[in-house]
Amino acid sequence: MSHEAFLQQAIALAVENTKIGGGPFAAIICKDDKVIASSGNAVILNLDPTAHAEVLAIRNACQILQDFQLNDCVLYSSCEPCPMCLGAIYWARLKAVYFACNRADAAIAGFDDSFIYDEVPKKPEKRQIAMQQIALANSLHPFTAWQAEENKRLY
Amino acid sequence: MSHEAFLQQAIALAVENTKIGGGPFAAIICKDDKVIASSGNAVILNLDPTAHAEVLAIRNACQILQDFQLNDCVLYSSCEPCPMCLGAIYWARLKAVYFACNRADAAIAGFDDSFIYDEVPKKPEKRQIAMQQIALANSLHPFTAWQAEENKRLY
Repeated sequence: MSHEAFLQQAIALAVENTKIGGGPFAAIICKDDKVIASSGNAVILNLDPTAHAEVLAIRNACQILQDFQLNDCVLYSSCEPCPMCLGAIYWARLKAVYFACNRADAAIAGFDDSFIYDEVPKKPEKRQIAMQQIALANSLHPFTAWQAEENKRLY
Repeated sequence: MSHEAFLQQAIALAVENTKIGGGPFAAIICKDDKVIASSGNAVILNLDPTAHAEVLAIRNACQILQDFQLNDCVLYSSCEPCPMCLGAIYWARLKAVYFACNRADAAIAGFDDSFIYDEVPKKPEKRQIAMQQIALANSLHPFTAWQAEENKRLY
């Protein structure tokens, strides 16, 4: 199937998702040109601000493959992933991402994607949510404890 | 309690988390100066690349408050939130964020936080994971379907 055909599936799922109280977004994950996971946005349904379509599809795909990485997988999203979902895509190490509408379209529809993109590159103390590093003498203790563990896996 | 004292709780939880197979990170969420939720990183434990400490703490706090926003809450993290967690913080609309070590410390310990921060501001087609918009005639259909719903809630 073509990229366009998978994106049409994502768009159809996003439309369907609005009929059950979900947000107007959906994502599909494919491996070897087959759909292995999909999800609509469930922020309101699950009372979970992290329940974006891409995050839920990644979580579902990882459960199906029993892996915390998705190296050979492609994500199709009805809309450009927001910075949270973009981060999730990097952590899952997906192979490629295709999307239909973009952050500007999401902004027009009333969603903060574009605003958050503008916030990410700012220094923490310059952001609209107050953020501050308070370095402590033992700030690095978790890393040294982790380095000492024999069975650690880097991710 | 002081910001430092809450950060010490987060650091202690992160150290503890490494002893049970979790990653070297933890986060705590406070409301009215009381801890309402906390979590260690559980990426490997849950086979879930989105199971960062901040994401799990936000999800826990939302379940406890039965809300998808955390307007009056403060997040304390053992380490600077990565872009995925930063996005989650904006979507949850937390009041403030404090962290002990930063993205450079995480990079030295072998984690991709700093790399992902460098990727976010790039144009999708310039990123190290291939990303491409394929605009389709019906790309905006999910938004128009959603606008037509009577009981929609913006988030």
